[in-house]
Amino acid sequence: MALIDLLQHPDSVTDRFTSSVIRDLLVHARSPDVISLAGGLPAESALPVERVAVALDKILSQRGNAALQYGLTAGEPELQTQLAAAAPYRREPNEIVVTAGSQQALDLVIRVMASKSQETNIAVVEDPGYLGALQALRGHGYTLAPIPVDKNGLDVQLLDAELEAGLRPRLCYINPSFQNPTGSSLSTERAAALVELAERYNFVILADDPYVELHLDGERAKPLPPSEMVAYLGSTSKTLSPGLRVGWLDAHPALASVVALAKQPVDLQTSTLNQLLVAELMSDQAWWSRHTEALRADYRIRRASLIQAVQHHLPGSTIAEQGGGFFLWVTVSHDNSADPRRASLDMMELLPRAVENGMAYVPGDAFTVAAKQPNTLRLSYSSGDPQLFDEAVSRLARTLLT
Amino acid sequence: MALIDLLQHPDSVTDRFTSSVIRDLLVHARSPDVISLAGGLPAESALPVERVAVALDKILSQRGNAALQYGLTAGEPELQTQLAAAAPYRREPNEIVVTAGSQQALDLVIRVMASKSQETNIAVVEDPGYLGALQALRGHGYTLAPIPVDKNGLDVQLLDAELEAGLRPRLCYINPSFQNPTGSSLSTERAAALVELAERYNFVILADDPYVELHLDGERAKPLPPSEMVAYLGSTSKTLSPGLRVGWLDAHPALASVVALAKQPVDLQTSTLNQLLVAELMSDQAWWSRHTEALRADYRIRRASLIQAVQHHLPGSTIAEQGGGFFLWVTVSHDNSADPRRASLDMMELLPRAVENGMAYVPGDAFTVAAKQPNTLRLSYSSGDPQLFDEAVSRLARTLLT
Repeated sequence: MALIDLLQHPDSVTDRFTSSVIRDLLVHARSPDVISLAGGLPAESALPVERVAVALDKILSQRGNAALQYGLTAGEPELQTQLAAAAPYRREPNEIVVTAGSQQALDLVIRVMASKSQETNIAVVEDPGYLGALQALRGHGYTLAPIPVDKNGLDVQLLDAELEAGLRPRLCYINPSFQNPTGSSLSTERAAALVELAERYNFVILADDPYVELHLDGERAKPLPPSEMVAYLGSTSKTLSPGLRVGWLDAHPALASVVALAKQPVDLQTSTLNQLLVAELMSDQAWWSRHTEALRADYRIRRASLIQAVQHHLPGSTIAEQGGGFFLWVTVSHDNSADPRRASLDMMELLPRAVENGMAYVPGDAFTVAAKQPNTLRLSYSSGDPQLFDEAVSRLARTLLT
Repeated sequence: MALIDLLQHPDSVTDRFTSSVIRDLLVHARSPDVISLAGGLPAESALPVERVAVALDKILSQRGNAALQYGLTAGEPELQTQLAAAAPYRREPNEIVVTAGSQQALDLVIRVMASKSQETNIAVVEDPGYLGALQALRGHGYTLAPIPVDKNGLDVQLLDAELEAGLRPRLCYINPSFQNPTGSSLSTERAAALVELAERYNFVILADDPYVELHLDGERAKPLPPSEMVAYLGSTSKTLSPGLRVGWLDAHPALASVVALAKQPVDLQTSTLNQLLVAELMSDQAWWSRHTEALRADYRIRRASLIQAVQHHLPGSTIAEQGGGFFLWVTVSHDNSADPRRASLDMMELLPRAVENGMAYVPGDAFTVAAKQPNTLRLSYSSGDPQLFDEAVSRLARTLLT
């Protein structure tokens, strides 16, 4: 068939677009028989639907038809102004580009930072790291330079050594707070060292920070030291609604302006109505504080339930240290003294059986690049009914033992 | 500066992202002193804000928090089902991918149709043609193969000759109905011939049809003959609201599925709430018929006002034949017998003076690729106050004479 020949030709770029385990699992997660600890969805009960309804009424009656009209590519000026004022470093509105979720900001920065010489398109990534970033980088033909993550975030010392040895990336992608999937945060010392390296070796740090408001154990994290080489990606998906698709890039105007240009032919602009809605909600600071405080309280309870379930049903496993966000990074025991059947635990292989048993998780190796970690998995406490966490983990334990 | 060095390096791809005259003009169009006939915006008064408010209330109260949650990348199943049933050829829901406006569908098809061998990435485009498509193609490094447009649309006979002579495009981008910018529509004969060529020479026809409902003089156009090589792009921007950013790809599943995969790392999905809103509005068929009929009546009046103004103030000019859509394609007279100062009319050069005089248009050469047409311009009757059209064109006439 002519169309399929075109699309499957060895010279076609279509082999760069591969499915994500996480997204495919969303299909399973919708089955009522499966308790899913897989998805990175916010708790549905935490989405502020009543407040949204009030805000939409207000916007549509005050703005009228203009709320449905075209706007400027870089964003609704009032939302840009608001985000600039709230940015980690104080920014001007033209340093903010509003995007269709932070995912689009990520995709656009990756695109504009590329070089025409394909072989120089190298990106440092956290290993394990956020799958959506790995996919986006691969989709644009980048070579990944994976650097391990530990409890203080990216191993910056190791990166330093690789740069010293000749590595020349154009980008370094990180989640500074409560990294997806490990939950770790970049320490202040490493943040300072990383920014120094970016300035010395000339690469952009893409600091994607969707979980920054979900600090469950302490204060909100301090931003990375100010530098033209740091670009922040912001999101409303974990605090207001992922279904609105409103995120942003917060970067030096030289980068922000080219991202806005690149956005024009991609989708012209982000939804006017949704931008006005986010501006309305975030400008109600009293509500916003109460709302984010309530989110943290809710996620604290959820996290405690899941930790308890893991400790109870998977006694030999360890949970990586974390201070917030959505996920537990669990290493299941290699210890086979108690039960020799547990000698080799490959969580990727075990997943179909877990789903059969009525639970879902994401295998750690969905996120790893170079250093495989077959006995790890990501469990999400952010969505679903916390009363079912215990049952879900008991189903997981049963899967591991059969 | 390190960041600027990176972005402006000759090897950087940033030179592919250039600003669009149209988008830049939106800034001017917002000044109250300028009557703009430049933008391709729908009439603000025609955007159904009351109906939208009712629909949003219903969705938020019936769906609750789920209306704000993540969904599947290819779209909300109920919107896919509805769009599939309404498609030019009857489709299955998996042949529809909901996108952030048809612009995103365009960008994604361009991206996935690319070959790794840059030099084979060739796209046939209408000359003059839609600027957003030209920008998107250039942004992905395609070489444009421009083919002239006349009153029956793309000159398919000329394309045939170029294919015969060795042209090997991967894509052919057209507006089948009321083309932007000329207003012409592809004739039935040419449509059949074009589809034959696509099948013979193995390229995809991207039929971008945002104006199809705005048939002001006759019936809705018949679709192109069915073929796996035809992909339709659909939009709600001209009928419901450009600010919602809901469009779609309607294509063979082999292409639809790879576009859905490519969309994942780009923005995960299109706004859940906005998709539910479009599904709600389009499923109210009685309202939809009344609404689109009212749109056509409104645009007929607008078009008549603008034609009258052009005939009155620019007597030597010609308006290209069209049957609907948003635009008049005007050729101003080269005849300098009456006034020798009109010897050379370059509408691109004259634009800043027109804006100074308080009106805006888009010069024809913003849309041309190979065949420059300096004495043409696009005037839009779709937005703004039709009572001001006469004044706008009189300001234009004054600009031409000074």
